[in-house]
Amino acid sequence: MDKKVEISMLCDIYGKLLTEKQFEFINDYYNNDLSLSEIAENNNITRQAVRDIIKKGERKLFEYEEKLLFMKKTLTQEQKIQTILSELTKIQANSSDKKIANILDSIKKGLNCLV
Amino acid sequence: MDKKVEISMLCDIYGKLLTEKQFEFINDYYNNDLSLSEIAENNNITRQAVRDIIKKGERKLFEYEEKLLFMKKTLTQEQKIQTILSELTKIQANSSDKKIANILDSIKKGLNCLV
Repeated sequence: MDKKVEISMLCDIYGKLLTEKQFEFINDYYNNDLSLSEIAENNNITRQAVRDIIKKGERKLFEYEEKLLFMKKTLTQEQKIQTILSELTKIQANSSDKKIANILDSIKKGLNCLV
Repeated sequence: MDKKVEISMLCDIYGKLLTEKQFEFINDYYNNDLSLSEIAENNNITRQAVRDIIKKGERKLFEYEEKLLFMKKTLTQEQKIQTILSELTKIQANSSDKKIANILDSIKKGLNCLV
């Protein structure tokens, strides 16, 4: 997984366990595409200080994931649901039975609410 | 939810964020049904010390859940899957079509792997 995407996901999951600054800078850097210099300027601190705060926050995010594995579990769950969904689509494609198609459509709607 | 069940679930989810002692005593008390006195005796400490360690661990578990909501999310997800499963069972009960019954059986198997 791309590092940027990974950090974004981890921050979505564990962000509330970071300090306010760690959360804010990681969000600025990874989600709002601000540079270290821009974040430094906005906060009246050095570029190095911004980098240190982000690195410390990232380390905490990875530590939480190592212990709790929520990202891994969520991704595995989503993958299983996607597999079921694509099996349903295959069955629909191979069936000309309207009744079956309707039932499968309603199941797919239910499953889509889970991801 | 019963407090014992709740603490057990929270400890399953967030246990790795507790200290070794907090985890061990909460597990002894809530899952292995040992009394405070028994845990105290096994560890050569006072009953009050055991109680303090358990209380502190419990507070941490509730704090993590307040911030991360993983138990809530897991329970909601499981409830949605159960709803889909019981809808599938209803459709099966109302249908005499063998083909539909088989398709729904295989979907139910897939869904059961999610809970």
